[in-house]
Amino acid sequence: MTTILVIHGPNLNLLGKREQGLYGKLDLRAINKKIAEKAKTLKAKTEFYQSDHEGGIVEIIGGAGKKFDAIVMNPAAYTHTSVAIRDAISAVDIPVIEVHLTNIYAREEFRQKSLISPVAKGSICGFGIDSYLLGVEAAVAAAKKG
Amino acid sequence: MTTILVIHGPNLNLLGKREQGLYGKLDLRAINKKIAEKAKTLKAKTEFYQSDHEGGIVEIIGGAGKKFDAIVMNPAAYTHTSVAIRDAISAVDIPVIEVHLTNIYAREEFRQKSLISPVAKGSICGFGIDSYLLGVEAAVAAAKKG
Amino acid sequence: MTTILVIHGPNLNLLGKREQGLYGKLDLRAINKKIAEKAKTLKAKTEFYQSDHEGGIVEIIGGAGKKFDAIVMNPAAYTHTSVAIRDAISAVDIPVIEVHLTNIYAREEFRQKSLISPVAKGSICGFGIDSYLLGVEAAVAAAKKG
Amino acid sequence: MTTILVIHGPNLNLLGKREQGLYGKLDLRAINKKIAEKAKTLKAKTEFYQSDHEGGIVEIIGGAGKKFDAIVMNPAAYTHTSVAIRDAISAVDIPVIEVHLTNIYAREEFRQKSLISPVAKGSICGFGIDSYLLGVEAAVAAAKKG
Amino acid sequence: MTTILVIHGPNLNLLGKREQGLYGKLDLRAINKKIAEKAKTLKAKTEFYQSDHEGGIVEIIGGAGKKFDAIVMNPAAYTHTSVAIRDAISAVDIPVIEVHLTNIYAREEFRQKSLISPVAKGSICGFGIDSYLLGVEAAVAAAKKG
Amino acid sequence: MTTILVIHGPNLNLLGKREQGLYGKLDLRAINKKIAEKAKTLKAKTEFYQSDHEGGIVEIIGGAGKKFDAIVMNPAAYTHTSVAIRDAISAVDIPVIEVHLTNIYAREEFRQKSLISPVAKGSICGFGIDSYLLGVEAAVAAAKKG
Amino acid sequence: MTTILVIHGPNLNLLGKREQGLYGKLDLRAINKKIAEKAKTLKAKTEFYQSDHEGGIVEIIGGAGKKFDAIVMNPAAYTHTSVAIRDAISAVDIPVIEVHLTNIYAREEFRQKSLISPVAKGSICGFGIDSYLLGVEAAVAAAKKG
Amino acid sequence: MTTILVIHGPNLNLLGKREQGLYGKLDLRAINKKIAEKAKTLKAKTEFYQSDHEGGIVEIIGGAGKKFDAIVMNPAAYTHTSVAIRDAISAVDIPVIEVHLTNIYAREEFRQKSLISPVAKGSICGFGIDSYLLGVEAAVAAAKKG
Amino acid sequence: MTTILVIHGPNLNLLGKREQGLYGKLDLRAINKKIAEKAKTLKAKTEFYQSDHEGGIVEIIGGAGKKFDAIVMNPAAYTHTSVAIRDAISAVDIPVIEVHLTNIYAREEFRQKSLISPVAKGSICGFGIDSYLLGVEAAVAAAKKG
Amino acid sequence: MTTILVIHGPNLNLLGKREQGLYGKLDLRAINKKIAEKAKTLKAKTEFYQSDHEGGIVEIIGGAGKKFDAIVMNPAAYTHTSVAIRDAISAVDIPVIEVHLTNIYAREEFRQKSLISPVAKGSICGFGIDSYLLGVEAAVAAAKKG
Amino acid sequence: MTTILVIHGPNLNLLGKREQGLYGKLDLRAINKKIAEKAKTLKAKTEFYQSDHEGGIVEIIGGAGKKFDAIVMNPAAYTHTSVAIRDAISAVDIPVIEVHLTNIYAREEFRQKSLISPVAKGSICGFGIDSYLLGVEAAVAAAKKG
Amino acid sequence: MTTILVIHGPNLNLLGKREQGLYGKLDLRAINKKIAEKAKTLKAKTEFYQSDHEGGIVEIIGGAGKKFDAIVMNPAAYTHTSVAIRDAISAVDIPVIEVHLTNIYAREEFRQKSLISPVAKGSICGFGIDSYLLGVEAAVAAAKKG
Repeated sequence: MTTILVIHGPNLNLLGKREQGLYGKLDLRAINKKIAEKAKTLKAKTEFYQSDHEGGIVEIIGGAGKKFDAIVMNPAAYTHTSVAIRDAISAVDIPVIEVHLTNIYAREEFRQKSLISPVAKGSICGFGIDSYLLGVEAAVAAAKKG
Repeated sequence: MTTILVIHGPNLNLLGKREQGLYGKLDLRAINKKIAEKAKTLKAKTEFYQSDHEGGIVEIIGGAGKKFDAIVMNPAAYTHTSVAIRDAISAVDIPVIEVHLTNIYAREEFRQKSLISPVAKGSICGFGIDSYLLGVEAAVAAAKKG
Repeated sequence: MTTILVIHGPNLNLLGKREQGLYGKLDLRAINKKIAEKAKTLKAKTEFYQSDHEGGIVEIIGGAGKKFDAIVMNPAAYTHTSVAIRDAISAVDIPVIEVHLTNIYAREEFRQKSLISPVAKGSICGFGIDSYLLGVEAAVAAAKKG
Repeated sequence: MTTILVIHGPNLNLLGKREQGLYGKLDLRAINKKIAEKAKTLKAKTEFYQSDHEGGIVEIIGGAGKKFDAIVMNPAAYTHTSVAIRDAISAVDIPVIEVHLTNIYAREEFRQKSLISPVAKGSICGFGIDSYLLGVEAAVAAAKKG
Repeated sequence: MTTILVIHGPNLNLLGKREQGLYGKLDLRAINKKIAEKAKTLKAKTEFYQSDHEGGIVEIIGGAGKKFDAIVMNPAAYTHTSVAIRDAISAVDIPVIEVHLTNIYAREEFRQKSLISPVAKGSICGFGIDSYLLGVEAAVAAAKKG
Repeated sequence: MTTILVIHGPNLNLLGKREQGLYGKLDLRAINKKIAEKAKTLKAKTEFYQSDHEGGIVEIIGGAGKKFDAIVMNPAAYTHTSVAIRDAISAVDIPVIEVHLTNIYAREEFRQKSLISPVAKGSICGFGIDSYLLGVEAAVAAAKKG
Repeated sequence: MTTILVIHGPNLNLLGKREQGLYGKLDLRAINKKIAEKAKTLKAKTEFYQSDHEGGIVEIIGGAGKKFDAIVMNPAAYTHTSVAIRDAISAVDIPVIEVHLTNIYAREEFRQKSLISPVAKGSICGFGIDSYLLGVEAAVAAAKKG
Repeated sequence: MTTILVIHGPNLNLLGKREQGLYGKLDLRAINKKIAEKAKTLKAKTEFYQSDHEGGIVEIIGGAGKKFDAIVMNPAAYTHTSVAIRDAISAVDIPVIEVHLTNIYAREEFRQKSLISPVAKGSICGFGIDSYLLGVEAAVAAAKKG
Repeated sequence: MTTILVIHGPNLNLLGKREQGLYGKLDLRAINKKIAEKAKTLKAKTEFYQSDHEGGIVEIIGGAGKKFDAIVMNPAAYTHTSVAIRDAISAVDIPVIEVHLTNIYAREEFRQKSLISPVAKGSICGFGIDSYLLGVEAAVAAAKKG
Repeated sequence: MTTILVIHGPNLNLLGKREQGLYGKLDLRAINKKIAEKAKTLKAKTEFYQSDHEGGIVEIIGGAGKKFDAIVMNPAAYTHTSVAIRDAISAVDIPVIEVHLTNIYAREEFRQKSLISPVAKGSICGFGIDSYLLGVEAAVAAAKKG
Repeated sequence: MTTILVIHGPNLNLLGKREQGLYGKLDLRAINKKIAEKAKTLKAKTEFYQSDHEGGIVEIIGGAGKKFDAIVMNPAAYTHTSVAIRDAISAVDIPVIEVHLTNIYAREEFRQKSLISPVAKGSICGFGIDSYLLGVEAAVAAAKKG
Repeated sequence: MTTILVIHGPNLNLLGKREQGLYGKLDLRAINKKIAEKAKTLKAKTEFYQSDHEGGIVEIIGGAGKKFDAIVMNPAAYTHTSVAIRDAISAVDIPVIEVHLTNIYAREEFRQKSLISPVAKGSICGFGIDSYLLGVEAAVAAAKKG
């Protein structure tokens, strides 16, 4: 059975409460439920981690290689500023799939540059919650290819 | 039944023949077969179009709105240079999903800027042929939401 | 009698069908009719050419010098990307008038740079269909000055 | 009857006296006469204002909304440096048509950027005195559309 | 008693008449009244100066050192283009407080750079008319510290 | 009664101990006392939070909407690097006032760009501790306007 | 016997007819004759292809590997804009020699950047028709080295 | 006898009163006296003009060609922002010598770019008042060469 | 006896476990042992701190001035993104020596800019673990000079 | 008989000894021998000069016009940094052919800009030693055309 | 008596022989004679040094402080590329006057940036040989103020 | 015994004579003595070379591989401008250690970019003369590792 760590970056705990026009109406708990269900259909198991702390995300990635087969991560604001998370991804030996709810390339200039993309296995953006679901599917496929 | 147009940009007819290390071993016919099978599992039907001509792709998109529910497109080299294809996408009223075989953000500087992304529904890159398959899945979902 | 070639660039065949808020409600046939009428009042004759193909536009300009006294052209998306059309204009020995329906300087950053303007006789933008009509007037005047 | 304010920016009082190769042989009085005649054929009335002072032009635009139906302006050097004139145009509720004698996009780098264009109704450049005449025509049409 | 010169830059005489959505409904006279009242509560006296002329503002600052204890200035469009006003502020030996009605950092790119800020005592922006009132308060405090 | 959260960013716990020439002689406790007194005169109540952790500041803003009417924040070094704090401010539905002790526009190049300003209600900088006091005043006014 | 494909880019069919001061007096037919003669002295055979279409050039390169030992190409305007031709060159397994009639590095800024050079075997520019002849010589040598 | 117009730009009327460390102790009257004396030794006559108004300087240059043989000008702040003064210099047919009291290339970044230099006969900077005296000498020589 | 604080930035706890080709085979414990031994030969005592948290590093530096004579720090990823750590270094009154295992100037573009270097006493990079040992030597020397 | 000066820039005396993978196995003596033989077949005579000194190369070019009909030069590292050599080439009245062993446009960013190309007759790069041989051929042709 | 070292940079030994349109007809010997005569009228003595070698100029400046009261230097091409000469000027304790025959700000982009100006006492350009004569005058004045 | 070549770049022969505030009071002879003594404690032997000539430094590096085990070099001004020295370092097969007396990253913008760092084994800056001593230590260690 494939085990997948799903990481939600800063402010994502507010999903469904704020800026629904931009990010949708579901809250993080509901989203995680949907992700878990999707994973189940692919015979995969998911664990979830949300943090507003760059260092916290670095730590969790640093230790993920031993326990998980792949990571699906929405780095949120840290997408554009964190070299530390980038380095953590480079250091870990399991595939990391980058996902975004919104199409970051249709937003402000500074959101159109991802420090994470060059070290991710691949990236998916713009499909709302479906971005996570497609990400899980990609993660399972990537984990199988080893 | 959802109908999806799959567009392959310039040089993609050479897939499986050249630069296999970068783009994989399957040729375009085999890839299209996989895409069609995936679509079938989602109760969708696919048509395929490959062209080396920017104008040809513009024309096909311009006429696609009447016949298809969504487009999955790998714009290849035109990703980075074609305002005309971008404008065609803006003009068409069905969702367009951008896919890339490789992680374009891990390649040369000039490939890290997509003129297509800001007007696409969403983008998927880096998963090899799976990028197309995930793209079809995203297209079906997007078409359903209307 | 002055003869004028009117060239419409990529996606302009969709005028009146898509994005009416931006480009207006008239379709290309109706626009051409208005242009022809205006030309008539100036004792000029018009021919029309629309293409989504950069190369097609290059070819038509390359051969226009023998048959026409001036060109009125809306290069649309190729305004910002085509050195080939620019070179074709430099090579032809009749005046070329650049027109745009919208005020390209009030739109996205990448639309604010025209590769065509530096080699055109002059440019007119922002007046909707009137841009074409003013362009025909400028073309007739330029053709007369030789 | 449409009333149009024609504004000439800095140094344009020297027209016909200096740099005739670049700007032509007619002096400002003769140009104004031609503009007035053209306006008359369109059933419009013109008033003229020339100033070397940025602040003077700002003031005249600020007060123009009550007395005129449209403005035709050649901002000359202030095209490239005046945010104050740009703001005045944004604040006035009649259409402003930007005109230039020369093709500013075929000149020095710093002349290829207009601060005025993004807030003008439209722009016309490169046709010598005809730029003014086409501008008046565009102004009358714009004023009529309200 | 502290005496404060309040300078309003170009187009601000149009306040309350144009673009009320952006700049509010009060006209300049009403604003000056509010400023004077606020000053009174702080035992300060105000004089007002509005000009569309960069040179006029330079002159008034050049002579302000002898008559005033501080300046509160909204340089408006000259914020972004006037080195001359900047130099005048550097030359005067009383504190100058820069204020803006709107949050200039949430507007167009070219409005996000102030030539005035680096030589002002401090800057306040984004609070509508309150920006002036806070500016007067800051000016009184700065004047007292000498 | 208006309740205001005052957030001090990284290194501000060192105020009064280091670099007094730049930041003044008062320590954070004394500054907070002054802020609280000022708030009292405006019938407002303040709470204080200092953190060197970007994530900690994101969390405190994320939860502030329920308990406070406005935020006064000196983001210090995170002004220039934190998209996460910017996003937290965008997500919260109470006004956030940005303050800085020094005139950041008179300092190093990299300090002259604030990621926070575009999403703040308004900004105040350069008045030393008075920046906080003016900020509280602005916050009370903004909170009242709702 | 070495077989060489000579590709002429857009507008080169106009050689000898337009802008002779810049590009010389010989027309394309005469140039091709000179190239063929030169090739003959090197025991090589040439075929010629001219197109104004980017996509046409992409196609011809895509199929050239089976029939030719080397390509000599003057990409003309597409030198500066075509990622698609660049990708076609990368995909083909025979050496491609880039040639230009003029010294592109002594012309406009935008002509001084070649997208083709980094993937070509080598480049030759500035020698008029001799650029082609030297290119054939280089192509024969490169083809021999395999 | 050579007649020379000496133009002092904005804020220079404050010389000797402010920022003596940067600009020296002499006031404008004393400087003009020195300039006149130097001119006298070269059999030249000087007239002086100081203005804080860009438009005023444009006007004075526009009319100088008839009355003077050369201009010595310190454009001060307008050095870096005025295309209008630049255009006035281009239009006038007498040599214009640019002078600066300070070495503008050893000051802030934005002072190191002169819009005036490219159209001036020559430039002299960094020698304090001697810059004016050398400028007069250069002007007399240039006027003689015609 | 000199006391030195050695700070390891984010992901350095993974040393010896990941990317050995880039960073070497020793783990952090072994490296610290080598550093301590080197310090001993210089009659210095070392303490060690590793954190993935930017805020944690800021705090530890903020409090280091009272307990240590110098700091040797490898800021790792935060080298390129942390203004907060830079400010903490500016605020502390003991010398800070920046060290890097790899030659950061031979790596990706974004790693070639250090925000830390301008406020560090000095920098050492490229010598693997020897960078730390040289850093300790430099720290002892700097601490002695006071 | 045509006489040609062949100039080798800095470090080229090390050819065949270092970095053979990049620059080939032949040493400079062997290369010169090949060049001389090629020249002989074209009825030309060659002289050789190698220097690591920018000034030395400037001097040799400065004096070459009297003794040689053309120059073939590999400026090596000075390609990218020497305005002095550029000026020397501009000053000499014989054609200068620029050659490079490697394809400089496929190397580091800073090697993709040549200060020499804009003033050379033409440029040849990427063909290894053949670059020199083609250069001699181009030089003989250029010398003949005068 | 003031002693002045006059340094001529690379290629200036060719003056009067090449590019007379740009640099004038006098050769270096004649120019030096004029400079010496001018110096004599100012009771100054001159020595001359010309070199194509950056290092040679660095050496001569390094030793000039003991023997000369001032330097007049035309750095020619090294103006734009030599940090070494800049450092030599910074290190020497006599004033250095930078002169140029042409108006470097009216030439190519890369000639409009001088590395020398920020460390020179002052700069003079655009007056042909008079630039040297004015430079000597400035040097004598500067040396006296010394 | 390890043999080390110590290279001092341009102007360093002036150490101890000029700008002592920046570079310290010791002259080059004294510094070399200290370096030699340090080397002795590490059982290494040193030779010294100082030159103001870029070409001279290129030559000495080109020949160093046969006689030395490592190079310690302070490239001074050539750090920022010399591709030739960079290429010489790339060509030599012994480790080169880059050292700087000052912290170049705390100086002018143009000194913050080193062309040498990417090809050096490692870099050390900011420790005054200790930079050389640490450099020798690093060189000995690097030489031992081969």
